Amino acid sequence: MRSDGRGACSIREVSITRNFTKHAEGSVLVAFGDTKVICTASVEENVPPFLRGKGTGWVTAEYSMLPRATHTRSAREAARGKIGGRTHEIQRLIGRSLRAVTDLTLLGERSVIIDCDVIQADGGTRTASITGAYVALVDAMRMLVERGSLPEIPIMEAVAALSVGIVEGEILTDLNYVEDSSAEVDMNFVMTSSDRFVEVQGTAESVPFTIEQMDGMRAAAKDGIQKLFAIQKEVLSR
Amino acid sequence: MRSDGRGACSIREVSITRNFTKHAEGSVLVAFGDTKVICTASVEENVPPFLRGKGTGWVTAEYSMLPRATHTRSAREAARGKIGGRTHEIQRLIGRSLRAVTDLTLLGERSVIIDCDVIQADGGTRTASITGAYVALVDAMRMLVERGSLPEIPIMEAVAALSVGIVEGEILTDLNYVEDSSAEVDMNFVMTSSDRFVEVQGTAESVPFTIEQMDGMRAAAKDGIQKLFAIQKEVLSR
Amino acid sequence: MRSDGRGACSIREVSITRNFTKHAEGSVLVAFGDTKVICTASVEENVPPFLRGKGTGWVTAEYSMLPRATHTRSAREAARGKIGGRTHEIQRLIGRSLRAVTDLTLLGERSVIIDCDVIQADGGTRTASITGAYVALVDAMRMLVERGSLPEIPIMEAVAALSVGIVEGEILTDLNYVEDSSAEVDMNFVMTSSDRFVEVQGTAESVPFTIEQMDGMRAAAKDGIQKLFAIQKEVLSR
Amino acid sequence: MRSDGRGACSIREVSITRNFTKHAEGSVLVAFGDTKVICTASVEENVPPFLRGKGTGWVTAEYSMLPRATHTRSAREAARGKIGGRTHEIQRLIGRSLRAVTDLTLLGERSVIIDCDVIQADGGTRTASITGAYVALVDAMRMLVERGSLPEIPIMEAVAALSVGIVEGEILTDLNYVEDSSAEVDMNFVMTSSDRFVEVQGTAESVPFTIEQMDGMRAAAKDGIQKLFAIQKEVLSR
Amino acid sequence: MRSDGRGACSIREVSITRNFTKHAEGSVLVAFGDTKVICTASVEENVPPFLRGKGTGWVTAEYSMLPRATHTRSAREAARGKIGGRTHEIQRLIGRSLRAVTDLTLLGERSVIIDCDVIQADGGTRTASITGAYVALVDAMRMLVERGSLPEIPIMEAVAALSVGIVEGEILTDLNYVEDSSAEVDMNFVMTSSDRFVEVQGTAESVPFTIEQMDGMRAAAKDGIQKLFAIQKEVLSR
Amino acid sequence: MRSDGRGACSIREVSITRNFTKHAEGSVLVAFGDTKVICTASVEENVPPFLRGKGTGWVTAEYSMLPRATHTRSAREAARGKIGGRTHEIQRLIGRSLRAVTDLTLLGERSVIIDCDVIQADGGTRTASITGAYVALVDAMRMLVERGSLPEIPIMEAVAALSVGIVEGEILTDLNYVEDSSAEVDMNFVMTSSDRFVEVQGTAESVPFTIEQMDGMRAAAKDGIQKLFAIQKEVLSR
Repeated sequence: MRSDGRGACSIREVSITRNFTKHAEGSVLVAFGDTKVICTASVEENVPPFLRGKGTGWVTAEYSMLPRATHTRSAREAARGKIGGRTHEIQRLIGRSLRAVTDLTLLGERSVIIDCDVIQADGGTRTASITGAYVALVDAMRMLVERGSLPEIPIMEAVAALSVGIVEGEILTDLNYVEDSSAEVDMNFVMTSSDRFVEVQGTAESVPFTIEQMDGMRAAAKDGIQKLFAIQKEVLSR
Repeated sequence: MRSDGRGACSIREVSITRNFTKHAEGSVLVAFGDTKVICTASVEENVPPFLRGKGTGWVTAEYSMLPRATHTRSAREAARGKIGGRTHEIQRLIGRSLRAVTDLTLLGERSVIIDCDVIQADGGTRTASITGAYVALVDAMRMLVERGSLPEIPIMEAVAALSVGIVEGEILTDLNYVEDSSAEVDMNFVMTSSDRFVEVQGTAESVPFTIEQMDGMRAAAKDGIQKLFAIQKEVLSR
Repeated sequence: MRSDGRGACSIREVSITRNFTKHAEGSVLVAFGDTKVICTASVEENVPPFLRGKGTGWVTAEYSMLPRATHTRSAREAARGKIGGRTHEIQRLIGRSLRAVTDLTLLGERSVIIDCDVIQADGGTRTASITGAYVALVDAMRMLVERGSLPEIPIMEAVAALSVGIVEGEILTDLNYVEDSSAEVDMNFVMTSSDRFVEVQGTAESVPFTIEQMDGMRAAAKDGIQKLFAIQKEVLSR
Repeated sequence: MRSDGRGACSIREVSITRNFTKHAEGSVLVAFGDTKVICTASVEENVPPFLRGKGTGWVTAEYSMLPRATHTRSAREAARGKIGGRTHEIQRLIGRSLRAVTDLTLLGERSVIIDCDVIQADGGTRTASITGAYVALVDAMRMLVERGSLPEIPIMEAVAALSVGIVEGEILTDLNYVEDSSAEVDMNFVMTSSDRFVEVQGTAESVPFTIEQMDGMRAAAKDGIQKLFAIQKEVLSR
Repeated sequence: MRSDGRGACSIREVSITRNFTKHAEGSVLVAFGDTKVICTASVEENVPPFLRGKGTGWVTAEYSMLPRATHTRSAREAARGKIGGRTHEIQRLIGRSLRAVTDLTLLGERSVIIDCDVIQADGGTRTASITGAYVALVDAMRMLVERGSLPEIPIMEAVAALSVGIVEGEILTDLNYVEDSSAEVDMNFVMTSSDRFVEVQGTAESVPFTIEQMDGMRAAAKDGIQKLFAIQKEVLSR
Repeated sequence: MRSDGRGACSIREVSITRNFTKHAEGSVLVAFGDTKVICTASVEENVPPFLRGKGTGWVTAEYSMLPRATHTRSAREAARGKIGGRTHEIQRLIGRSLRAVTDLTLLGERSVIIDCDVIQADGGTRTASITGAYVALVDAMRMLVERGSLPEIPIMEAVAALSVGIVEGEILTDLNYVEDSSAEVDMNFVMTSSDRFVEVQGTAESVPFTIEQMDGMRAAAKDGIQKLFAIQKEVLSR
């Protein structure tokens, strides 16, 4: 049994609260256990320079942690004057994941900027961010439809993400911070509701992993992500 | 009557939620109406270089707004690579206000870093930050006492802050965003529970103000801040 | 008696030298005792992006100290790659103070940039900057009138500033560096020639202050600023 | 047949030239077809702060492209003053890949810094970098053994990397730039000579991919990487 | 005799390899002994803002060293976030030298950006850069003529550069790193094939130098640069 | 006759005012006609890291222009967040020039930082800076001797600098801004009072120059610099 009482292939309690703040077109508080992230989706009626005049839209993401989201306080990236490598890696991942399920042509020449701000971290902040950001994105798209800016929601299917790892030789789903810190392998899977993959990232933190282990982690991720799709669907149907 | 139904000298509904996140020594969600700020107090067992070896502690603050805390999204200061003038001004104000009520010698060679992160802005983010940060600071100090690191809480009295302004010639207490945007004068008062001032900042946004107006705003602030002290006290006694 | 022989409510010897450098539309050397600041006013035929097409002008300020304006050399902000919090705070104050007496609509779509460069510091650099910058601003406006770019000078009244503080319990006007370093309270007042306030900033450096003390400092400031208005007027009438 | 005449599962011509420059402890020019990268390994007798006094070493990597390594010139990151997200992502990947096969305890408190500078880019710069950097790392370790600084080479096994993608529905090994630009899916595999994985990164550039496709890409990568191990081995045996 | 067996006024073995990389309009590897620099010339169909609409072109240069081009590894300027003074000095020198022989009006509103990236350093990197960049520039211009973008090559004459110094009182031509490190005086001459000067930079590293010494160094430089012109001419005639 | 009535080989009126500001160990206002620079010399009892423990001192320089020292206002380098190439070039030149006449071993492990801040620019700011900074440096050294920190002044001889150029084919000494803007060639000479050179920098702004022209400029510079030495000597003897 795991430190928090879960079975090896259980995900933590996941909650997604819509309309968490009032200004953004989409605003969600997502919690994967003690990991809590505010995901907002902001619509802007322009696109980055490289897309201007091409009749296509854009979805991008930024990610940050409050300084004391973690056990010890980390310096703000604004104070250090630059964004670190880990932040770059995560925000690029979130952006790609959401673009994969968005019909950018249908969106037209506008941008949706996803902001994922971690207010409390306990492992899996990037997977929680993607899972919550999807809901914020749908809410922003619904508002565009309501406003008459779009004929229909330009989202092709749902997207959600989960981490799976190997700790002391055993495959565990949805690692918390303590498990993540001691994991031999850490894999993040981003899947769509049609059971396909948009991102797979696996890293051997200490010991290289075999094909069999990769297959095991993949199966565990697929199982867990089904539950995330169910939660997203339920939350969006309210 | 004001847009939100308040009388001229009423403050908005204020709530202070302690233990809002789990890692920080002190962690508070403070709300002044729709303005919501997460204030954490982090203890570090060291002091900045200019204080090393002097046997005295330090309290400092950092302030930030989530990109979509506001009506339209603002770029992250981390992405722009530098902290703007307004942020500098506010975080210096918060730091000075809290140091004014802290016995730094009693604190010993350790630092408390206050982080004020605005998750939703509707005017008065700096005064909400100071008022909430005081509670987070007390909680962090209590933890130091509980741990046996300090014999007693090195806080001399309470501190709270309120904005008062002149809108269409009338003095209004605790301006919300719409009022603040159209105010002729904007004054922020930071007071201690012994009815003294630690910071006074008044700015004529469009029309210079008279001595009489300044006295009127000061009286209104004093009244409102009494209510904040009562709320802080009640919250801290739970 | 004070270290430099002044009475408690005397200002230092103030001099304002016009046309100090030759390129700027307005250029002044202002001295408050040993505090010396070069204030230039530069006219540019454009406005910042947020004002374009609105038919209104802009006045803004930048502030800096030469590295060895102070007792010990401070690193250049250009070398450190960023502007510090104190500089931000001061240059924003100068800009707001001058905008408060400028009719920006009358100015039309052009900007006046005020540069305050402290060449020698002995306390009160921000108040000397505002007082001198006003003269440079008037000179720049006169040049615009002379050139036929403006029908009249778009300045509504004079503006000047003074610091007042409490040192060893006594209210002192126009603090020099030594007094400022040991002051319990430091207040800066920016007033217009119609006896109204555009900025009030008071800070308890060590001990909170009472209403009575605030009133005393305000009265002292008002007295001293009268003398500054007289000097500005005399200098501008040459 | 592919644009350069290769079969779907053929890698490009790979060459690894040792001792390419004279100062570095290890220096290699690696070419995967027209992709050419200089990989150097520099030994420093210290470790980053977080490892000091722990008796363990460090291997890290930096990655850059010459401005005109690409079809159109890209601005230098030094000129822009910050390192972009893609660069961060790649250099972190290279560093993790090499650490995975290095016995850091055996290395002792010293660092090896890998610099991968792309002088000509035609797709697959990160996989060429990892494959070439391994040879530079071994050369640097051999020099440490020759100097008597290390009793044996602290490398546990070989590491190499290959990209595989799906272009027009077909799995292709070792994509060149043209193929990469039009790929539906792009996966990078980093494997060790014991047939295990240290990094797997798959991205659906336009269309999500299935489990079957992932298995197909993985098998193709495994085949191709065998050839890279053979080349590394042959080159290192000269 | 010098450490590498040369006579006092001999230049090192110089080689210039054209078409070193495939994307740039001009691409050269230049070697002055063990100093090796990749020089590329990139054509862009625009000019910097200060030249727009003036019907004239621009030639500019950027310079960098790979981190391990030197005996000990130097930090990347991109990682440090700013370009150092030495780099600025050198790239400005290269740019001015090439503009001096280019007919910018004939070039029309387009830019040629020269990138000089030192892959191995052994003294004289700036003089090798200028000498090699000239060849890359000619190649880029030839491509513009071939493409029909220009009627003729807008280069007025050849330009090359050489360092001369005084070591232990003796004038030495084309200093290598060891000689450069111990030189009393270091002069760089940039000359055109009509025997005229475009840049002269002499620095007394430790002992000021006399007119006679300056004349001696100038004569030595003139001799050596003749050889460089011959090599450039031969290489360009292939 | 030149625009300001001078003959071709006349320098402008030069004045050097000592003790211009009160905090620095040496402080000078130097004027070459309308070019005015504040040069201060600050002593610090430490040396940069690369010199620690070597028993030798350091002299370095920083250079800046007030934003409105020039005809049109230039943005502050602090506001842009980085120091430009021209500034780097000039401050490195000033530093080398002063080190060339300082006995750094005699100075001991302390630094003198020269700050040259141009308050009004009319050509020749770098040569005025060097000429004035020498006087500030001597004053700082004298103070060290007076304080008993040094047995004697560690300056070996005087140093001064002058620009000479070719305008419309004619050699002109000490160019003002208008002349400098239209010069075909611009040379800066830094000489010591023993008639030797520490720096020579010549640039063909538009037309390469011949040996004869270089000799002519050198002779003109030598003549003019004699006058600068006389002025420095007279000023220092007061």
